Amino acid sequence: MNDVRRPRVGHIEFLNCLPIYWGLMRSGALIDVELTRATPVELNDALVAGELDIAPISLVEYLRHAEDLLLLPGVAVGSDGPVLSVNIVHERPLEALQGGRVALGSSSRTGVLLAQMLLAERYGLTTEFFRAEPDVPRMMREADAGVVIGDVALRAMYEAPKQGLTVTDLGSQWRQWSGLPMVFAVWAVRREFAQQHPGIVKGVHDAFQRSLSLCLSELDAVAESAARWEPFDAATLAGYFRALDFSLGERQLDGLRAFARKAAQAGEVPPLPAGGPELFQI
Amino acid sequence: MNDVRRPRVGHIEFLNCLPIYWGLMRSGALIDVELTRATPVELNDALVAGELDIAPISLVEYLRHAEDLLLLPGVAVGSDGPVLSVNIVHERPLEALQGGRVALGSSSRTGVLLAQMLLAERYGLTTEFFRAEPDVPRMMREADAGVVIGDVALRAMYEAPKQGLTVTDLGSQWRQWSGLPMVFAVWAVRREFAQQHPGIVKGVHDAFQRSLSLCLSELDAVAESAARWEPFDAATLAGYFRALDFSLGERQLDGLRAFARKAAQAGEVPPLPAGGPELFQI
Repeated sequence: MNDVRRPRVGHIEFLNCLPIYWGLMRSGALIDVELTRATPVELNDALVAGELDIAPISLVEYLRHAEDLLLLPGVAVGSDGPVLSVNIVHERPLEALQGGRVALGSSSRTGVLLAQMLLAERYGLTTEFFRAEPDVPRMMREADAGVVIGDVALRAMYEAPKQGLTVTDLGSQWRQWSGLPMVFAVWAVRREFAQQHPGIVKGVHDAFQRSLSLCLSELDAVAESAARWEPFDAATLAGYFRALDFSLGERQLDGLRAFARKAAQAGEVPPLPAGGPELFQI
Repeated sequence: MNDVRRPRVGHIEFLNCLPIYWGLMRSGALIDVELTRATPVELNDALVAGELDIAPISLVEYLRHAEDLLLLPGVAVGSDGPVLSVNIVHERPLEALQGGRVALGSSSRTGVLLAQMLLAERYGLTTEFFRAEPDVPRMMREADAGVVIGDVALRAMYEAPKQGLTVTDLGSQWRQWSGLPMVFAVWAVRREFAQQHPGIVKGVHDAFQRSLSLCLSELDAVAESAARWEPFDAATLAGYFRALDFSLGERQLDGLRAFARKAAQAGEVPPLPAGGPELFQI
């Protein structure tokens, strides 16, 4: 009798992670995991609460719970330059936003913190932030700028310029500021689970690596398929998927550490331990 | 702009439907549906409530809600003879159970009704039924027979005989009684959804057909994979998967109609309309 259960693995149900889902499906990896598809915030909470064994987690939430978690090497959601889908929309130049009001149209923890740190530190601005529904025209009636993430941000990229608005890509901004890639989310395994079931975690990690290489070689097919259901055409989706950086190598880890340092200086997260982040050892 | 959303499709998260999940994955069909994996009872309720567009549904529940639903042709979960996993466990011969107590160790609506009709009508027995935890030794301390379904039933097939118990396969019993296959669950689409989105339903139906032929040709691989996680070895699982009949052709429809007739005579479901069941027209 076999009492080993499938690992409980989370998956972000948004468009940016569709290529990874495609890879998990086409490589056959799905059959060996108990997959929960949910929003990033739901997955963050479930992983921290121990209701999932392995899941993507917002970089900021990982930094807050690093003692319980190990990172899976090689896989992340980030960008090395423009990300297209994490944007500030504004009418005046960013430099002229001193004292202005900034609407935050997302609950994405890392994207919002990146926007706040850029405005405060790179541009030296004091601004007031408030939560808002992610609707660009409405945000711009009540604010001087709006932070949008995901589908709304991707759409704003194409539509806001027609309304005289500027769209500033926060992936590009980070790249110019730090010289490094931005990492928005990482994949983490609960430390305890990794200690008890290293073979299972290795299996899931291998499956992610296989899934990633498979989906990267089929991005146009993923885009064609997604265009049937999403409010974007296949070319837009392919451009979006190609802007994303799903890898977590040395440069991405340097970017992660740079973000962690700034976030800790801002008092938003505990400092990363020396030598961190701690990776699952394959 | 495209406002068509992916169809909301249910999937039974139990072992008997693993081959279909395998097929949906390996054929790539998963990317075009919003899949909810849940127990049969949860899926029954969600489909009837309109929270899913297409889902497997227990035959009994389909018969109770046939006016809102159309069946997808070609796909079902049943057996044409032994099913291995829907069983009555008993010590005395079935014929000697008159006046006895029968523990129902499952919430499966069709399997339980089949057991009740067989005992009452095929064997002419008056027995008392009561709900119980699906634990064979405990059931047999409180009852003269126990109805078990799923993993518990499959395990009982191998273990109960060692304890001097007889395991009677209800798929075989139905076959002998009616001369026809038994259909435990069907796939149904909500009538309204099929009228509004016939092309999408056709797409899902095509995907199921592709998935079924793919998984039937790879049943040994499905069994090998499942044996890593389930309390059965690959040979047992392969035998189980081969006992199942995932098709819904003319013979299966005749079996369905025969069951519906008996269930209506027993007052458990409304009669199937003449010419029923109504199929989604491809």
